[in-house]
Amino acid sequence: MYDIIAKKRDGGTLTQEEIQYFITGYVNGDIPDYQASAFLMAIYLRGMSAAETAQLTLAMAHSGDMVDLSAISGIKVDKHSTGGVGDKTTLIVAPVAASLGVRVAKMSGRGLGHTGGTIDKLESIPGLSTALSQKRFFEIVQEVGCCVVGQTGNLVPADKKMYALRDVTATVSSIPLIASSIMSKKIAAGADRILLDVKTGSGAFMKTKEDSIRLAEAMVQIGEHVGRRTVALITDMDRPLGRCIGNALEIKEVCQTLHGEGPDDLTTVCQELAANMLYLAGKGEPDVCRKMAREQMSNGAGFRKFEEMAAAQGGDISVLENPDRFPKAGASYTVAAEQDGWMTAMDTEKCGITAVELGAGREKKGEAIDHSAGIVLQKKTGDRVQRGEPIAVLYAATDEKCRAAAELFRSAVVISSQKPTAVPLIHARVTADGVEKFA
Amino acid sequence: MYDIIAKKRDGGTLTQEEIQYFITGYVNGDIPDYQASAFLMAIYLRGMSAAETAQLTLAMAHSGDMVDLSAISGIKVDKHSTGGVGDKTTLIVAPVAASLGVRVAKMSGRGLGHTGGTIDKLESIPGLSTALSQKRFFEIVQEVGCCVVGQTGNLVPADKKMYALRDVTATVSSIPLIASSIMSKKIAAGADRILLDVKTGSGAFMKTKEDSIRLAEAMVQIGEHVGRRTVALITDMDRPLGRCIGNALEIKEVCQTLHGEGPDDLTTVCQELAANMLYLAGKGEPDVCRKMAREQMSNGAGFRKFEEMAAAQGGDISVLENPDRFPKAGASYTVAAEQDGWMTAMDTEKCGITAVELGAGREKKGEAIDHSAGIVLQKKTGDRVQRGEPIAVLYAATDEKCRAAAELFRSAVVISSQKPTAVPLIHARVTADGVEKFA
Repeated sequence: MYDIIAKKRDGGTLTQEEIQYFITGYVNGDIPDYQASAFLMAIYLRGMSAAETAQLTLAMAHSGDMVDLSAISGIKVDKHSTGGVGDKTTLIVAPVAASLGVRVAKMSGRGLGHTGGTIDKLESIPGLSTALSQKRFFEIVQEVGCCVVGQTGNLVPADKKMYALRDVTATVSSIPLIASSIMSKKIAAGADRILLDVKTGSGAFMKTKEDSIRLAEAMVQIGEHVGRRTVALITDMDRPLGRCIGNALEIKEVCQTLHGEGPDDLTTVCQELAANMLYLAGKGEPDVCRKMAREQMSNGAGFRKFEEMAAAQGGDISVLENPDRFPKAGASYTVAAEQDGWMTAMDTEKCGITAVELGAGREKKGEAIDHSAGIVLQKKTGDRVQRGEPIAVLYAATDEKCRAAAELFRSAVVISSQKPTAVPLIHARVTADGVEKFA
Repeated sequence: MYDIIAKKRDGGTLTQEEIQYFITGYVNGDIPDYQASAFLMAIYLRGMSAAETAQLTLAMAHSGDMVDLSAISGIKVDKHSTGGVGDKTTLIVAPVAASLGVRVAKMSGRGLGHTGGTIDKLESIPGLSTALSQKRFFEIVQEVGCCVVGQTGNLVPADKKMYALRDVTATVSSIPLIASSIMSKKIAAGADRILLDVKTGSGAFMKTKEDSIRLAEAMVQIGEHVGRRTVALITDMDRPLGRCIGNALEIKEVCQTLHGEGPDDLTTVCQELAANMLYLAGKGEPDVCRKMAREQMSNGAGFRKFEEMAAAQGGDISVLENPDRFPKAGASYTVAAEQDGWMTAMDTEKCGITAVELGAGREKKGEAIDHSAGIVLQKKTGDRVQRGEPIAVLYAATDEKCRAAAELFRSAVVISSQKPTAVPLIHARVTADGVEKFA
């Protein structure tokens, strides 16, 4: 291991055997944390070639169970988001794609810190289970076309161990390490094609467009290297996506959007994501796929597929037909604008933390959450506001929680006299052929 | 700690508080090895400014006991060598400097791997103790002028812990880390002025002259920063120093050299080292000091001081008067040249390992050594040799050991038909005023 650390320290290119040696030894405990962290810092500062990154990814993917989706007919397309605030797109685009014959066997996560988790959102539907056996998971994907569950089995133990170490040794924000972490999980999860939603902006892991594009390129290259066709969209997270943040609130917004009545930003991003899943599944050229996706989001087909999936997972779908039946939060609080002007910026990470304080998320793994808590935004970046006008309604179990969170929320938004310039929702599309920018 | 790692990772300059936080936390166990190793790799790849290196050195020095030499009158000059093969200079230059009124309170180490240790050499004098109380150590320095003991007390625990970690995480060969490791120990040892002998070449830690000069400059800068005047000499270790390698053999050579009858290379290097100790002690300009040192090495004053010191430490000095009284090795073996030509190169590290195989050194800490074992070189780089002529005599406990070591020794020397160009013994002298090269 010493020689492998020294080689990367000196800027050398590691062989597949050296990378495999590290992953095998680190996972089985032969290589101690202190050697791994020195090695990860050397990778952080010296980088990795595309081939090294792909080899690292494959070695990580094979460190645990590899899901075999071959028993499910059709083309399986996975979708991954790098995480954001108000990001409920999976629950919209998976049913839309499934309604046109794409198979989506999606393993998703829980919320942590300022970013929400699809599993938590889905579980706000009474009775719905995300802890299914692999057999039942596959059955639902085969019968309904899509299913969203929590991670099952021992997937990519190398990533779990490496991530925990990177988290405390300042080696997280390295493109090859982030790319291999994400892609190893997607590869282990077994889909044929992969759509990546790389968020960019104040609420995203990647704060700049340039970094987001570099990460997307690295992940698309990995996909190419290992024979899993991959497309990445760079989408905006400089403000929350949609108007709702918080689990049951977001499920209501999912239903609205699948009825063609969702907020414009969420609708646009979901159309583009769903279109690219259709494109990856070979349903036609991007423009044809965009049109198909748009139709399924207004003709009710996407909504019906979402209901089918929720029912198959044991959910009480009467709440989807009549969202007033969702449990209500104990208290609410309206945040009003303190001055006239334009909302010129939202610190999206702070908005996410506000939702955590309201009870919608968790600071540490394993904490309980309040499915009814959250934020409904009345105004977003670019909107005109008048003094006294509501800019958001906060929901929590108690008035106290609402008031404490309101203060934080206020500090997250900037109202000024200057109208801000519009920012695109979709910044770029990255494929093996290159980067297509929309700016 | 995370923030400190990230700052250095991004090339930032650490504050004194941040450096102190790391040293305190690492020594008391609050900062785990895996964070320390990531931090050390970041230092390795990003470097440290002169001020950061000096602050690190001071924080390390103060992590344990600080020796207070103020009870000893006069100017205390310490001397440190980065380690080599056949390096017995301390035992020559300390008495020479002491014979002219300089105080040398020297803590020294044992041999490990291919490099010998002054303590082991000294202990080949029957009865001599290097494990003295601090009180007795100070008394001898005051009365005799010099004393050489093993390290006592809890000196620089930060270095012990950091070095063990660097050794297994490929972070040893970093100039700021090497410089702070050496200088922290010199500073904790309490001398007013410091002379450094930075070895360069195949038997040295630093293999190139350029690296040796960079290390010397870093250490001299640290000395300046902390108010301990420091001079460094870059001396040759591309061949063993002197003709003897091995403990009792080297003590005999010390006596010869202090009688003005030593090998030219050893005599020259010792004169220069002693002269610089005199210079640091304020005894005059370098040329004046050179002349004084030369005199004390031929008029017997240096030898008498060495005897006085050995006697004060309990040694039977009759062996110094009559070196035939040293215990004899069980077996000897003459290595003869296999061809005519010039000795053009010696792999000095291999010569050192040959001595270890003969029993003169140890591979692991704590192993016993054979004081009578070693090598007497008959020929060295630059010498003409004829086929069948002895090039070295090996001494060990058994014939078998000699024969096994002979094979290794042969592979360490190159005899060819081309006369090699002469290489200087002293490459450079580094002071706060700059680098003076002798090439």
